[in-house]
Amino acid sequence: MMKKPSVTLLGAGLVGSLFAVFLAKRGFEVHIFEKRSDPRTSAKDQGRSINLALSHRGWKALRAVGLEEEVRKLAIPMKGRMIHDHEGAQTFQAYSKEGKSIYSISRLALNTLLIEAADAHDAIHFHFNHNCLAIQEDEITFFHTKKQKIIRVKPQLVIGTDGANSVVRKRINQLVKADFEETFLEHGYKELSIPAGENNTFLLDPHALHIWPRKQFMLIALPNPDKTFTCTLFLAYEGERSFDQLTSVEAVNAFFAQEFSDVHTLIPDLSKQFFENPTSFLSTVKTYPWHYEDKFLIMGDAAHAIVPFYGQGMNAGFEDCSVLAELLEEYRNDWSKVLPAFSKHRKKDGDAIATLALNNFVEMRDSVIDEHFLAKKQKIAELYEQDPNKWMPLYEMVTFSDYSYSEALQKGKEQEQKIVAML
Amino acid sequence: MMKKPSVTLLGAGLVGSLFAVFLAKRGFEVHIFEKRSDPRTSAKDQGRSINLALSHRGWKALRAVGLEEEVRKLAIPMKGRMIHDHEGAQTFQAYSKEGKSIYSISRLALNTLLIEAADAHDAIHFHFNHNCLAIQEDEITFFHTKKQKIIRVKPQLVIGTDGANSVVRKRINQLVKADFEETFLEHGYKELSIPAGENNTFLLDPHALHIWPRKQFMLIALPNPDKTFTCTLFLAYEGERSFDQLTSVEAVNAFFAQEFSDVHTLIPDLSKQFFENPTSFLSTVKTYPWHYEDKFLIMGDAAHAIVPFYGQGMNAGFEDCSVLAELLEEYRNDWSKVLPAFSKHRKKDGDAIATLALNNFVEMRDSVIDEHFLAKKQKIAELYEQDPNKWMPLYEMVTFSDYSYSEALQKGKEQEQKIVAML
Repeated sequence: MMKKPSVTLLGAGLVGSLFAVFLAKRGFEVHIFEKRSDPRTSAKDQGRSINLALSHRGWKALRAVGLEEEVRKLAIPMKGRMIHDHEGAQTFQAYSKEGKSIYSISRLALNTLLIEAADAHDAIHFHFNHNCLAIQEDEITFFHTKKQKIIRVKPQLVIGTDGANSVVRKRINQLVKADFEETFLEHGYKELSIPAGENNTFLLDPHALHIWPRKQFMLIALPNPDKTFTCTLFLAYEGERSFDQLTSVEAVNAFFAQEFSDVHTLIPDLSKQFFENPTSFLSTVKTYPWHYEDKFLIMGDAAHAIVPFYGQGMNAGFEDCSVLAELLEEYRNDWSKVLPAFSKHRKKDGDAIATLALNNFVEMRDSVIDEHFLAKKQKIAELYEQDPNKWMPLYEMVTFSDYSYSEALQKGKEQEQKIVAML
Repeated sequence: MMKKPSVTLLGAGLVGSLFAVFLAKRGFEVHIFEKRSDPRTSAKDQGRSINLALSHRGWKALRAVGLEEEVRKLAIPMKGRMIHDHEGAQTFQAYSKEGKSIYSISRLALNTLLIEAADAHDAIHFHFNHNCLAIQEDEITFFHTKKQKIIRVKPQLVIGTDGANSVVRKRINQLVKADFEETFLEHGYKELSIPAGENNTFLLDPHALHIWPRKQFMLIALPNPDKTFTCTLFLAYEGERSFDQLTSVEAVNAFFAQEFSDVHTLIPDLSKQFFENPTSFLSTVKTYPWHYEDKFLIMGDAAHAIVPFYGQGMNAGFEDCSVLAELLEEYRNDWSKVLPAFSKHRKKDGDAIATLALNNFVEMRDSVIDEHFLAKKQKIAELYEQDPNKWMPLYEMVTFSDYSYSEALQKGKEQEQKIVAML
């Protein structure tokens, strides 16, 4: 058994705080540095939300460290897509034949739960308000934003769970000639809130992920425990139907009245929300390698930030935790072997889910109302029922199975070709 | 004559807006992207100040583009250091025998003037509120913080005048194996303001740079046109005398009463200012190369951020403008030759002023009250008077001469050794 080093995590978001628990359970001493303040005492300082949808890979990682049950209490099952047409008529498409669900959950509530769970371990030490200024040879420099002072730390192994704009990734990319690419979507997004109805009821079916697919753009809505829905409008920045065209109260109201008539009536302060809430961008980050020697590693969004359309960003990050824990088991905690193995093994899955997520944007906003697409979907559902070992819908593989993302992508392509030939 | 490309500057700070004028005068089309808002219409959004001291190299660059006279109207001459002892007794040390001054100037006022001067050129185009998200092969992605949209630009040549945290530098460091180092000072700093006196008068001599040298820490004060002084306290983060010790109103008042008794009486709301104003850090950035092919170049703080103790940060950046303009003249606007020549030629001066600035911290906070130091200073002043071609005080070389910083550093060392032997 190798000597267990202390591990330094940069970023106490979802992946960082969950992986800390994995590490503590393997006997490691863990220090987590986070630039934001502690969400348990200050909820203001948190980042953007985007609704989260927990599915199989996420649950599996939570289960491995005994957190599934606690998290389940915060989650609202969504059994399928509820498609809204222009007039407000709704059509339900189940996610799976067996009634499997994905689960809507609040990022802040989940992150707080994970931090609490991690902090219960004596071996895990949280350091909030630590803004990383520089990572160097054997020292990390932080600026403590509350104490307003420079803090220097000499870490052994540093794992970047610090998101799409990761400083650990930037450090790795300085040390090796990295293959790095960030691609920005032509669409931005804006969040809006549908209030709870009278007597504290949901104004839409809470057990569905609601979609208003409009080909070049779309609106989605996910339920919250307080009976509200968080909507996200995905819309191009420029062009005929775009954020560029929505610069007046009249234009916003006309757009929603025409495109999302039912939502328009559900949000009384629509234009106020529209102009107060920020428009944000979406990007895909691909990079390689994910590690440097036995010193630096990145995981989660830091290694593979993806667009949100497959609901897999968090699930992919949580699966990173599972995969990395398995490698630690396999290599008996020898990080010098685990780091390159993770980087090499997991990269193809990061690339695959990035592609799947981009493709699913087209599916959600356009294909779900396309007859040819629905016919293919029907066909594969039938084949799956006849022989689940031979056929499986792509969504099922990605969301509810243990197929790796790269296997799912490959098998999905092959099935698609066969089915197109059948129809 | 080579074809003149359009030049893209990232950062409309002091160096960016001044160099734009140099470029316009040479016939280039210039686009400047700046993440902050236009200081002419919104003064809120500006960064930290730290008093600026304009000296020879800065004036020379301003003169070259005809801006010296206008800037002179905003500047307050400081003829020397005014040393304050614990009891408030003041001793004046002139900067030069000939009565030469350095000039206190407001960063915001100067930046606004430079932006106005640049904007008067048809060839210069400002793009404010453009936050750079990514620099790639042939495209820069910005997020327009007011319009909340992604903007893509395909630049030819990109010059980073984007300060100590330069994104252009980070891009260069991705493309080549760069030699990069950022070193943080053990001291932080905090700004405080001495108000104007009754009848709108200065409470201290306005024609001096005031110093309270206390060996391990110091306070300085520079005059402003509104008759106030901006003070900066430089103090260690940790230790016996440190920001760590100043966490209560009582501790702050006791510290100032003991160490800076005269200032203590001049700032009625001292502890309020102390706890409201941020503590900030200081660092030195060294990097090489400063360019990549004929595509990217960095100058100013982006290439050589230094600590403020020689009052040379802005002057070094302005001298970069002069040096780069001379190279454009020499190589007839052929950027493919100018970029490597600037990088190679100027790097040693960036390194030299970084060293000089760090050394001057010791001089300001400690040596200015050391008898041995004063004896050496007296001796070199005498030698300089006898033979100004052979001897020149280091401060004179750095602040008032055309010696390059590297020559000044070298010649300063040699003189020092000779003088030590004489005494």
